[in-house]
Amino acid sequence: MTWHRLGLIAGGGGLPKAIAKACSQDERLGCVIALQGFADPADFPGATVRTIAQFGHAISDLREAGCDAVCLAGVVKRPDFSALKPDWAGVKLLPRVLSAATRGDDALLRTIVGAFEEAGFTVVGAQELTGGLLAVEGPVGRLALSEADREDALKALEIAAATGSLDIGQGAVVCGGLVLAVEAQEGTDEMLARVATLPPNIRGQAGARRGVLAKRPKPTQELRVDLPVIGVSTVIGAAQAGLAGIAVIEGGALIINPDDVARAADEAGLFVVVLPRDEVETP
Amino acid sequence: MTWHRLGLIAGGGGLPKAIAKACSQDERLGCVIALQGFADPADFPGATVRTIAQFGHAISDLREAGCDAVCLAGVVKRPDFSALKPDWAGVKLLPRVLSAATRGDDALLRTIVGAFEEAGFTVVGAQELTGGLLAVEGPVGRLALSEADREDALKALEIAAATGSLDIGQGAVVCGGLVLAVEAQEGTDEMLARVATLPPNIRGQAGARRGVLAKRPKPTQELRVDLPVIGVSTVIGAAQAGLAGIAVIEGGALIINPDDVARAADEAGLFVVVLPRDEVETP
Repeated sequence: MTWHRLGLIAGGGGLPKAIAKACSQDERLGCVIALQGFADPADFPGATVRTIAQFGHAISDLREAGCDAVCLAGVVKRPDFSALKPDWAGVKLLPRVLSAATRGDDALLRTIVGAFEEAGFTVVGAQELTGGLLAVEGPVGRLALSEADREDALKALEIAAATGSLDIGQGAVVCGGLVLAVEAQEGTDEMLARVATLPPNIRGQAGARRGVLAKRPKPTQELRVDLPVIGVSTVIGAAQAGLAGIAVIEGGALIINPDDVARAADEAGLFVVVLPRDEVETP
Repeated sequence: MTWHRLGLIAGGGGLPKAIAKACSQDERLGCVIALQGFADPADFPGATVRTIAQFGHAISDLREAGCDAVCLAGVVKRPDFSALKPDWAGVKLLPRVLSAATRGDDALLRTIVGAFEEAGFTVVGAQELTGGLLAVEGPVGRLALSEADREDALKALEIAAATGSLDIGQGAVVCGGLVLAVEAQEGTDEMLARVATLPPNIRGQAGARRGVLAKRPKPTQELRVDLPVIGVSTVIGAAQAGLAGIAVIEGGALIINPDDVARAADEAGLFVVVLPRDEVETP
């Protein structure tokens, strides 16, 4: 759908900053709403700070700035719903949010996306605004993957598809065919830290790297929010876990600061690879 | 199949000890082979100590003791296969073991079970020897589960079935409908420790316990080895993770030292419940 002016609702991490940067010359960016406790307002000069429970205020902010579209980007952890202090529109939304929250992250995000759409806004994916961050086929750094790596990558992508279809998470680590770890609420960084503590004989290590982290969208997921993200911290975590590399699917992940990611991967001796869709069997 | 004399191949943890105790008055127990690095030989007076790579020696031990059956019980971690010093029979077995090891734990165990069967032994499940440990329907301690707990228990069992069918693991934790964690190579204790570090708002805590650990066999698993095990340490881990309880399926788990498990659950204010098969929807 065509839209004319965008509001960015910013959570934590590098993605909202990358979007604000990509839109900095763009007169279509009408306002930024920095979510309290997640986004650092210092990163977004002129932003309005709102809590995640101030849905009505956010809608007013967007309308006052003349926005007809909104982009939800960045990390937002599940709140303590009982401690929220919602505004009036937030109160009305809360029962639906609470019900969806028990089904999984994708269900929760769909409800929030739906609420913005019902309020008349077009919801725009980060990838529409920062085309340069969307994963395109090929290696991101200098290293490519070996045949053994490719098998691990395809199996990890298959596992991530299966767990994603249950709305569990987007990531998995496979080494030598063995599923070392599956991501749920702990997140990717924590999963990688766990792999680093597994017995050395079932994983790789610096100098003899083995195993692949794969991330992919959940098969049914709302792709305008919560696309898997790969950043420098992901590369560092994968390196510490002894992995040979990281695999995502074309169009199925955002690479934040791709030059930095490539440099970090090259320095650590890891590959970061974007596989073509048709190479990835979806179970 | 009928058998007359049994050899117990003991790994770590409480299960082999419970079996040896249950068979202590039993003239059918011909010998115990304590696996070096896993079983403590002091727990098994008169046992022969062998490494997991001494397959040929183990077969000879069993035959010399007049055994026609074998029970594989207890925790054995995946070894560093390249560091093994197999005997001649072990060398012949190793390629099949290595190939299976890349597919998952169940595949690996099937190969080992198959090797004992090919050598002419009947492989007997722990549950045949210690009927009293096999989970039977009902609560193990004093506490029963609420309706909300039951929903979490059924969802956790469903998730464990799905991940089990991919040979990932046997356990999952669900709280308020949300999948908090899925078990892979880290094991149950480590998964519970991770849940204890998740944000307090998505899990329970002492005094306001929420969420359920479920364990079940993988749908296609070889049930004579590696049945899920619940022991006192599982209860303690679940308590520290703020969970309301633990759920397994009738006939689908072994409860080690059930009186101690019940006491630990009562003291911590957790339920441990064995659900009837027909109540658990298998996806």
